[in-house]
Amino acid sequence: MERIIERSLLFDFYGELLTPHQQKIYSEAVFNDMSLSELSEEEGISRQGIHDLIKRCDKQLEGYEDKLKLIERFKKIRKDADNIESLLDSCSGLDKENASKIREKLKDIIDCL
Amino acid sequence: MERIIERSLLFDFYGELLTPHQQKIYSEAVFNDMSLSELSEEEGISRQGIHDLIKRCDKQLEGYEDKLKLIERFKKIRKDADNIESLLDSCSGLDKENASKIREKLKDIIDCL
Repeated sequence: MERIIERSLLFDFYGELLTPHQQKIYSEAVFNDMSLSELSEEEGISRQGIHDLIKRCDKQLEGYEDKLKLIERFKKIRKDADNIESLLDSCSGLDKENASKIREKLKDIIDCL
Repeated sequence: MERIIERSLLFDFYGELLTPHQQKIYSEAVFNDMSLSELSEEEGISRQGIHDLIKRCDKQLEGYEDKLKLIERFKKIRKDADNIESLLDSCSGLDKENASKIREKLKDIIDCL
C-alpha cells in the first residue's frame, strides 16, 4: 500500500516529464492496478518489456524527486498550512470574516501544490 | 533585465536537472554575466559551442516549466501568502502570540518554495 501511495505521488508530481507512452502504461499499472500480463496483452509488448518500462519510470521519477524534492516540500508546506489552520482555530476572539478569508487563501495554497 | 530574472528563476527551480557541466556554464552566463568569449576561453569550447549549449539549456529549462509550472505555482502561492499576511494585519481579535506563530509558519511556506 505504501508503495502505491509513493508511486501515485511521484506520478502526480513528475508524470508530465514521462513520455505519453510511459505515462499510459505507468498509470494503468499504478492507478488501475493492471497486471504485467494484462498490460502486455493490451500494448503488444512482452511482460518483460512492460516490467522494464515500469522500472525505468520508477527510476526516472525517483531521480526527479531526489533532485527537485517537490514531494518533500509539498508535505512540509501542507503541514505548515495545517498548523496555521489550527492556530486560527485556537484564536477565540478572531473576527469571522477575515478568518474565513485566510482559510480560503490557505486552501488556494494547498490546491496549488 | 526581464530575461535575466526569467533565466534565474528557471535555473533556481530546474537547474538541478541540468548536468553539472551545463549548470556551470549556464550559471556563469546568467549570474556572473560572463560573455561567450570569456566562457569559450575558460572552457576551451568554441563561442558557437557555448552559444548552443546555453540555448539548449534555455529550451530544456523552459520545457520543464511548460510541464511542471513550478514558477507559475510559486508566484501564485507567494501571492496567497502575502494576502494572508495583509489579512492578519487587518484582523481584530488576534492575540500577538498566535499572530506571530502564524507569520512564522507563512515564512516557512515561502522559504520552502
